[in-house]
Amino acid sequence: MTRKRTPRTAALIKRRRSMGGLEFFRQMLAGTLPRAPMTTLLNLRLLEVGKGRVVFGAVPTRSHYNGMGVVHGGLAATLLDSALGCAVNTMAPPGKIFTTLELKINFTRPLTREVGPVRCEARIIHVGNRIATAEGRVVDTRGKLYAHGTTTCILFQQGSRGSRHR
Amino acid sequence: MTRKRTPRTAALIKRRRSMGGLEFFRQMLAGTLPRAPMTTLLNLRLLEVGKGRVVFGAVPTRSHYNGMGVVHGGLAATLLDSALGCAVNTMAPPGKIFTTLELKINFTRPLTREVGPVRCEARIIHVGNRIATAEGRVVDTRGKLYAHGTTTCILFQQGSRGSRHR
Amino acid sequence: MTRKRTPRTAALIKRRRSMGGLEFFRQMLAGTLPRAPMTTLLNLRLLEVGKGRVVFGAVPTRSHYNGMGVVHGGLAATLLDSALGCAVNTMAPPGKIFTTLELKINFTRPLTREVGPVRCEARIIHVGNRIATAEGRVVDTRGKLYAHGTTTCILFQQGSRGSRHR
Amino acid sequence: MTRKRTPRTAALIKRRRSMGGLEFFRQMLAGTLPRAPMTTLLNLRLLEVGKGRVVFGAVPTRSHYNGMGVVHGGLAATLLDSALGCAVNTMAPPGKIFTTLELKINFTRPLTREVGPVRCEARIIHVGNRIATAEGRVVDTRGKLYAHGTTTCILFQQGSRGSRHR
Repeated sequence: MTRKRTPRTAALIKRRRSMGGLEFFRQMLAGTLPRAPMTTLLNLRLLEVGKGRVVFGAVPTRSHYNGMGVVHGGLAATLLDSALGCAVNTMAPPGKIFTTLELKINFTRPLTREVGPVRCEARIIHVGNRIATAEGRVVDTRGKLYAHGTTTCILFQQGSRGSRHR
Repeated sequence: MTRKRTPRTAALIKRRRSMGGLEFFRQMLAGTLPRAPMTTLLNLRLLEVGKGRVVFGAVPTRSHYNGMGVVHGGLAATLLDSALGCAVNTMAPPGKIFTTLELKINFTRPLTREVGPVRCEARIIHVGNRIATAEGRVVDTRGKLYAHGTTTCILFQQGSRGSRHR
Repeated sequence: MTRKRTPRTAALIKRRRSMGGLEFFRQMLAGTLPRAPMTTLLNLRLLEVGKGRVVFGAVPTRSHYNGMGVVHGGLAATLLDSALGCAVNTMAPPGKIFTTLELKINFTRPLTREVGPVRCEARIIHVGNRIATAEGRVVDTRGKLYAHGTTTCILFQQGSRGSRHR
Repeated sequence: MTRKRTPRTAALIKRRRSMGGLEFFRQMLAGTLPRAPMTTLLNLRLLEVGKGRVVFGAVPTRSHYNGMGVVHGGLAATLLDSALGCAVNTMAPPGKIFTTLELKINFTRPLTREVGPVRCEARIIHVGNRIATAEGRVVDTRGKLYAHGTTTCILFQQGSRGSRHR
């Protein structure tokens, strides 16, 4: 199957082939690589990048709400998926990518606009030959916890058939 | 804490107080209740509603992509969270709401624009006095599986303090 | 690292190399292969085997109790891990083994001796080139649900270094 | 439903009614309260108790093996369920008990007899009015990680109908 890619996505994929995940996300943080479309749509921002550790931020707005007057669980889920996936990928060498197999999220408090900016700090737990796991927490500026989660990722050769058919 | 609510959200909350979840989502399906902002942002659509069963649909676009040329895991996560939460809430009486405690998602295939429309069918597994669980699957028009997940929800009195501090 | 294996375990491993998982568990069901030590310890029994589907049974006794007068969650966890792992491995060819990456369990009702025999039916959800997922439910003889769960497994060449260092 | 309880279990339940979880597990550690039957069966031992933190230990033996020459996932699952549940219950007042709603386990390395003693340290993540979450890790004496997990628990009045029908 041939996929039509936007110039932006094609550029991102090509750059990732030539550098490890850590360098890749450092350049994204520096603004020399574009943001991913979904993070633009939900207004998530990469805030910090280190080896095995990444922080993403978000500012809950009305557009993130569910029908019951609080932020939809999808915001914390997307924030955690972004941060956990990036944290794991800071450990990936050039041309290899960790893909998410599963994501588990606990919602501990409802999130609202009144909470203000939140950050999601993710850290690796285990990095093996093929499998990596990580954990992350969504907190407000005072450290109050709104959600936490873990993920399991598998390492693929970039662009391999396997990466498309797990 | 007082929360400023939009007229749309305030209307949704008030309507939910006077009717059970099943009737509520039937009216949302019929278009007599507005969609939730987050589902508008990601363009998710409620497609079917039954007792203990709900179907949501989505059409993956470029705006849902991550930086690696496939749809961000947050789309399937938000789709599953919506469908699972609604399926469980079709079992809730007026004035009571099931809130999501945790969500677990497996990603079995990468999702791309080329896949076309996907649907997420969610069904309840267990409904007890306080706790309910449900499962759901994200499939394309040929039934191919892209993600699946389960959730655990807890029943709250609508607007109770408890619902804000789990 | 050399591992000292009991004759029983060594025989099981050798037999598995020469046959696929389906045939392996059929022979275990027929009694021509010995049970695994842990299933003996907890008195779990393989009851049914099919392609992508397995049933294990258990009879809760006092020895399975936690300190609070009900069965320890570890019994349902071990039952689900056994059934899910076997269901996935019925899809594995000779010399290849699916190993469990993660297991997620929901406990929906407390289990006691008074419940009597329970069975755990597990079915595959997804089987890909490298990854498989499955789901299972623990029910009593009247079909009442006590626990349910899902798993993610990865395919390994039997005895490969990779299988020991995920 | 009337349950026949052993004197040991009845004594444990009665004691728990008169003291909070922290004191209860401290007495269990001191040996003035008996061990739970399941921990005796699998030979799990409570090693440390603090507010919001508990350590359990185990020594993998042949009797814990699955059919493939490594320890059955049920051992780490039972170890994590014990440690996570106890860690959360150190926060419970007299007469109230946290019951496990769900448990999620990642298996990062196979466990064998050659590994020697392992310990599972569990810590609370969130304790709310009704819901608590915790995380734990299974490591060997050199700190090597074999499994990790999280749990979600709900608070019940001890002996209430609700505790039996979630």
